[in-house]
Amino acid sequence: MTGLLIKNALILPMNKETTWFQGDIYVEGNSIKEVGKELSPDTPNITILDGQDTVVLPGFVNCHTHAAMTLLRSYGDDMPLMVWLSQRIWPREAHLTEEDIYWGTMLSILEMIKSGTTCFADMYFYMDQVAQAVEETGIRASLSRGMIGLGDKAELALRESEEFVQKWHGKAQGRITCLLGPHAPYTCPPDYLKEVMALADKLGVGLHIHLAETRTEVEDIQKQYGMTPVKLMDSLGLFTGRHVLAAHCVHLTPEERAILIKHQVGIAHNPESNMKLASGVAPIPELVKEGARVGLGTDGAASNNNLDLLEEMRTCALLHKVTTQDPTVLPAYQVLEMATRNGAQVLGLEKVGLIAPGQKADLIMVDLHKPHLTPLHDPVANLVYAAQSSDVKNVIIDGKLVMKDRHMVTMDEERVIYEARKRGQDLVTRQ
Amino acid sequence: MTGLLIKNALILPMNKETTWFQGDIYVEGNSIKEVGKELSPDTPNITILDGQDTVVLPGFVNCHTHAAMTLLRSYGDDMPLMVWLSQRIWPREAHLTEEDIYWGTMLSILEMIKSGTTCFADMYFYMDQVAQAVEETGIRASLSRGMIGLGDKAELALRESEEFVQKWHGKAQGRITCLLGPHAPYTCPPDYLKEVMALADKLGVGLHIHLAETRTEVEDIQKQYGMTPVKLMDSLGLFTGRHVLAAHCVHLTPEERAILIKHQVGIAHNPESNMKLASGVAPIPELVKEGARVGLGTDGAASNNNLDLLEEMRTCALLHKVTTQDPTVLPAYQVLEMATRNGAQVLGLEKVGLIAPGQKADLIMVDLHKPHLTPLHDPVANLVYAAQSSDVKNVIIDGKLVMKDRHMVTMDEERVIYEARKRGQDLVTRQ
Ligand SMILES: [Zn+2]
Ligand SMILES: [Zn+2]
Repeated sequence: MTGLLIKNALILPMNKETTWFQGDIYVEGNSIKEVGKELSPDTPNITILDGQDTVVLPGFVNCHTHAAMTLLRSYGDDMPLMVWLSQRIWPREAHLTEEDIYWGTMLSILEMIKSGTTCFADMYFYMDQVAQAVEETGIRASLSRGMIGLGDKAELALRESEEFVQKWHGKAQGRITCLLGPHAPYTCPPDYLKEVMALADKLGVGLHIHLAETRTEVEDIQKQYGMTPVKLMDSLGLFTGRHVLAAHCVHLTPEERAILIKHQVGIAHNPESNMKLASGVAPIPELVKEGARVGLGTDGAASNNNLDLLEEMRTCALLHKVTTQDPTVLPAYQVLEMATRNGAQVLGLEKVGLIAPGQKADLIMVDLHKPHLTPLHDPVANLVYAAQSSDVKNVIIDGKLVMKDRHMVTMDEERVIYEARKRGQDLVTRQ
Repeated sequence: MTGLLIKNALILPMNKETTWFQGDIYVEGNSIKEVGKELSPDTPNITILDGQDTVVLPGFVNCHTHAAMTLLRSYGDDMPLMVWLSQRIWPREAHLTEEDIYWGTMLSILEMIKSGTTCFADMYFYMDQVAQAVEETGIRASLSRGMIGLGDKAELALRESEEFVQKWHGKAQGRITCLLGPHAPYTCPPDYLKEVMALADKLGVGLHIHLAETRTEVEDIQKQYGMTPVKLMDSLGLFTGRHVLAAHCVHLTPEERAILIKHQVGIAHNPESNMKLASGVAPIPELVKEGARVGLGTDGAASNNNLDLLEEMRTCALLHKVTTQDPTVLPAYQVLEMATRNGAQVLGLEKVGLIAPGQKADLIMVDLHKPHLTPLHDPVANLVYAAQSSDVKNVIIDGKLVMKDRHMVTMDEERVIYEARKRGQDLVTRQ
């Protein structure tokens, strides 16, 4: 049994009871064993991390991304959505190989760990490569093979998804969970969604879907089916009896919000992607107030253009204050909950996202000894409104130290940057 | 004569002609002497900086801040504006000493240089201490002693401002310029503003004022004077015949935009402060399109909560895309212009903000060898949408290397953090 002891840190447990306190955290195996003062566990092989001038909190959960799209970072920006997709993204995605997906995902995991993300929800293709990268690097992930229910590959998507779930769900010491990934209401017609739901239930997994992202989607679905996307999904029973992770949920009526809340749908809010693509502003203050499960996501790096949850927290808080004309909405602690504990709930994970005995040890230590984090009147406000991802000093996932003093333990950082840069450059010239 | 040579870097000259190219920059004294390929100047004492894997661009210009408010960073967040000001900020500001202002400003300069800002516009009090910090650290600044035209200190503000300008305008090898700082239309009545204008003209300097920041301000001024703030200022001739730096300009009619543009008023846009305080969204896409001079500012750290221009650029681009529902507005290059060249214009500075022979050598080198900046499809989009301030590697101001490999050359970083932390903690307990 390996042991890991964080000594004398400022701890943000995210348990709603205490905001912060000075103390120690003892990790045994993959779980938190004890939280308290001056712990001195009797473990022979113990790693001790000095918590002086650091704040320890649960690692960030990125509730929605397309990891390998890092290869298309900054390849087409400031363009109308359909021009960007049809002229930039889709033609290049058609050239992505399995190896590209592996290295693009490795790049995204490197970036995520270095910015304090310990778990992510991915929807893309060649998911075996994604799962392999997750297994190797030690990160936690909820993985979905994206499924398009139109065209001749619809049935293949079902078969491959089934194989993927059977092969990977619960693997990598339990760090990998799987969800089926019907892409969106406009790419998965009702009959297809019924097949997806039946398969999910047979496999005992939930769903990850894009929902109500753009006004165009809402209008098109309304025209085609006489109902909005959320109501269409509800009429199919999509939200009933299984866990659903719904990305975006930008355009919702009060009635649709009530539907999502009633079924405890996990909502992945992606403020930067929604802003950059001008999709709109999701009604997050209302959803949170009414009791929805809301986490934060970055979406793919092609529309963000990074995978930085600290930044996403800040943007989330600022965006909703100005949109509602109320500086008190989404205070710092609430967005920190979204990025940690609530994010884990949104992915349907148990024992992830807070600091308490018995919880999985997904922890980050943030260095407070920085000009932009001085003075320290309020560590939560400093984290949400002033910190940057390079302040993350140590990262522990599933009890294992994966980054120490910003050096990667489980990854060859130089190799990943080299491969990703080479493949990214090559990708955009392929015919 | 000292020489400084940047070899083989990716150069973003910000000159509108070339977006970027690989090359060298030779700096002699405080100016750029030559830009080109494989330069080998014949200077005996030359410092050579390897530009491999870096992008060089003009340093960022922070067009509006209250530097020493770093001491109140994260001291009161997520509160209604008047509660925050009256219960948190004003009572603490009343306790600020000259020494606090010095160390708070030192902290802000440390943070700004470390995040690539080479010039800032400040409005606060005890400005001798601010000027001293600017002189010592080597940064460039436009300084204004804030003036309140109500109450018994109104005349004192005029006298002290005059002394301050006479003492510091053009000093620190020309790095310090001064503007008079009438705080805002609602704190400086018309008769007082006339005195300020007369003093400015006598001293040959411009003005720095808060303008049309909140809806309340616009309504109150309208009620009191029968005109909006911009029209009131215009009716006083405030914009005529002198340079004016106007911070915020959130609530403007098309007619008021035309007034600001006609008089080439420098507008400091502070998106994060405006969002956090829920002041509103300034009509920046319209202003830019119509030919206004617009730069970026952070405002004070108490309402931001950092002084990070890279972040401000990103937030600016994202905010206006979602607000206008148009992903093509404020493309990356345009916000980079706002943060550099246009920012310098907004402060009324000459030969600052672009890379060309004869320009002041205010340059930053950003390290591109980072996971979140890989691959490098577009360095401008990577800077604006993906970079973080810790990627800034070297900073040159007025020809002098002030940060090298993230180590401060002109400042004792540890001392500044120590003093600022101590004073910040002490400040909030003072009776
Ligand atoms: Zn997505
Ligand atoms: Zn201000």
